[in-house]
Amino acid sequence: MSPDMQEAFVPPARLLMGPGPINCDPRVLRAMSHQLIGQFDPEMTRCMNDAMALYRGVLRTGNPWTFLVDSTARGGIEACLASLLAPGDRVVVPVFGRFGHLLVEIAQRCAAQVRVIEVPWGEVARPEQLAEAIDRFGPKLVACVQGDTSTTMCQPLADLGQVCADKGVLLYCDATASVGGNALETDAWQLSAVSVGLQKCLAGPSGSAPVSLNEEAVAVIRARHHVEAGLRGADEAPGSGPRIQSNYFDLAMIMDYWGERRLNHHTEAASMLFCARECARILLREGVDAAVERHRINGGAMAAGLAALNLRLYGDPDHRMNNVVGVYIPDGLDGEALRRVLLADFGIEIGTSFGPLDGLIWRVGVMGYNARRDAVLVTLASLEQCLLRAGHRLSPGAAVAAALAHYDSAA
Amino acid sequence: MSPDMQEAFVPPARLLMGPGPINCDPRVLRAMSHQLIGQFDPEMTRCMNDAMALYRGVLRTGNPWTFLVDSTARGGIEACLASLLAPGDRVVVPVFGRFGHLLVEIAQRCAAQVRVIEVPWGEVARPEQLAEAIDRFGPKLVACVQGDTSTTMCQPLADLGQVCADKGVLLYCDATASVGGNALETDAWQLSAVSVGLQKCLAGPSGSAPVSLNEEAVAVIRARHHVEAGLRGADEAPGSGPRIQSNYFDLAMIMDYWGERRLNHHTEAASMLFCARECARILLREGVDAAVERHRINGGAMAAGLAALNLRLYGDPDHRMNNVVGVYIPDGLDGEALRRVLLADFGIEIGTSFGPLDGLIWRVGVMGYNARRDAVLVTLASLEQCLLRAGHRLSPGAAVAAALAHYDSAA
Repeated sequence: MSPDMQEAFVPPARLLMGPGPINCDPRVLRAMSHQLIGQFDPEMTRCMNDAMALYRGVLRTGNPWTFLVDSTARGGIEACLASLLAPGDRVVVPVFGRFGHLLVEIAQRCAAQVRVIEVPWGEVARPEQLAEAIDRFGPKLVACVQGDTSTTMCQPLADLGQVCADKGVLLYCDATASVGGNALETDAWQLSAVSVGLQKCLAGPSGSAPVSLNEEAVAVIRARHHVEAGLRGADEAPGSGPRIQSNYFDLAMIMDYWGERRLNHHTEAASMLFCARECARILLREGVDAAVERHRINGGAMAAGLAALNLRLYGDPDHRMNNVVGVYIPDGLDGEALRRVLLADFGIEIGTSFGPLDGLIWRVGVMGYNARRDAVLVTLASLEQCLLRAGHRLSPGAAVAAALAHYDSAA
Repeated sequence: MSPDMQEAFVPPARLLMGPGPINCDPRVLRAMSHQLIGQFDPEMTRCMNDAMALYRGVLRTGNPWTFLVDSTARGGIEACLASLLAPGDRVVVPVFGRFGHLLVEIAQRCAAQVRVIEVPWGEVARPEQLAEAIDRFGPKLVACVQGDTSTTMCQPLADLGQVCADKGVLLYCDATASVGGNALETDAWQLSAVSVGLQKCLAGPSGSAPVSLNEEAVAVIRARHHVEAGLRGADEAPGSGPRIQSNYFDLAMIMDYWGERRLNHHTEAASMLFCARECARILLREGVDAAVERHRINGGAMAAGLAALNLRLYGDPDHRMNNVVGVYIPDGLDGEALRRVLLADFGIEIGTSFGPLDGLIWRVGVMGYNARRDAVLVTLASLEQCLLRAGHRLSPGAAVAAALAHYDSAA
């Protein structure tokens, strides 16, 4: 063991202003450091039931089946798709960024037939496009990202939900990056299944994926319900329908674990449960609408400040997420070198980009615990210094002034 | 929101002496409460590399590909099997408890052909049985549990490893419940792939699954390597071989994330990473051999004490795990009622059982942070009181005396 590894790891102080993860709310860190209790302890069951009720509030739904998957947000997506889709099923996916590609890729691994609606990066899909794709392809499911941090775009979902409802198609939504910072109305928008993560506007770490399923989605999943050989009674049938291809992400079995039957499945990641419960509690104490408004105001201040740094904002301004802003890297400036200086000298992290936007834009996040005035102002002040030193032309002081003016006008 | 849910959840004090999860080492809880850093921060990369090196020590291997899967231990099993097995591949699984059934079930969901070696519960598989099954069935892989908490049996693996090596078959081992409390020699025993969890003898919570792959296993997995559409370069081929059926558990992609390339996959569950690193560090500071010996002594003291409570021990005494002891519930005694009293009045949890042992035995764990003299003695003293009140005939004081005598003889 090297000398370093003999010591406990203590992470350096960082202000995380990228597309996520971001800094946790200190109350969430405290929740995670609690000692464990047993998996079927009555207090554990109560905590699980609390988490179900709290996430109904966060996701604005009455869905009884609202619970946690023990994985990062990506695992929540796979759990929904693998449980909803059987081989050969048809799916339509609007792709307007990297996470749309991910939905396609996961659906393909479920052996589904996927039809993509290609949307130029920086824009969102229109309901007419979806209606047309559904009419032509006849899918069982539409899978859509709400906020795609890769492009900073937020897909309006109410109209898509109506289209799907009219045509009798299930609508799954990955709202990981948007939940808590942008309106998300599971029931009002007629979403059949939603999955999220904690590490964006919910002010927690990655590692737990809340999901919610409406009655229709539950019926589809339950039709493929199985009980493990080591658990079922001697006279009990193993199950019905083709097996869901993943054991770990089999939502029918996970519902047996979170439901009345309390059938053992995985060993619940108790620390992440405590933490997920606390993320939801904090958000509901503030109020979902108030939290969204806080993200809108702080995200707006950041955007105003970045524009005043003589940086051009990326993407359709009508559909930007509240919690992440893309800006073009100025011509001739080494974007990665600047990010390294900002991190090493100021302890502040902003985001790079993927795929077609790699090297073209930075992504600046304002979310969760960091959707705060001081975090916005410190980031703008420090970024200004780095840009100046890199030779970028800007008006010193203008960024913070613009952000402050934005706060004043919003007050 | 009900008044309860408006408050932070504070778990009650519990001494967890079941088959796991158990209480965390306080240093692990502290590690988990650290503030986050960015996913590609140099300090994050260092922490990930530390974890890889530390788990090589824990698993006694030189395998470069030793890393974490972001799920509970069950997800680590699925990641190994789904990445190693393509549809139609043949697998042999010795089943001597519930977790053997789980391996069968997961392998079947990977569309593999599974041949079971049925072993009576309370015993372990013999190398001749394995050799014969391999000769008859010609599998690509043997999948085996080391310590199956459902029966408290610990499968000897050195001989099975030799059989597999001689016959050119891969050997995967689920060592979740045994690692740290029983000898586990990944390299010396010629294991191709191993996965574990933190919530047993490693004194951590459920939620991270360390895995290790030898060169052969890596070659099998890499033959099906793919890069996601949203990430790969314009000229890059998508990949080779049939796709691994899970995106989340695609170890080839997870290796791209943990390796030099640092290709984004999931968002690393940083808090669980900090915690996993600390679990390994603590174990290596003590020394793996010393930790195994501690489990052997404390587990032995518990077994001696339980026998002195006039309880009959379960299973083949030559193959008991060090860290969990099964005892028959005395005739006419309501096992669940006693467990409830022990929990409610004494704050101590012991385990119930599954499947064929349901209602027949209790399982008492002595593991990780709780493999301590005080935890053993307090459990025996409290259990004695509950048994006495339930009318069980025993010699008061004999259990603690037997445990103390065991400690003396081991000193």
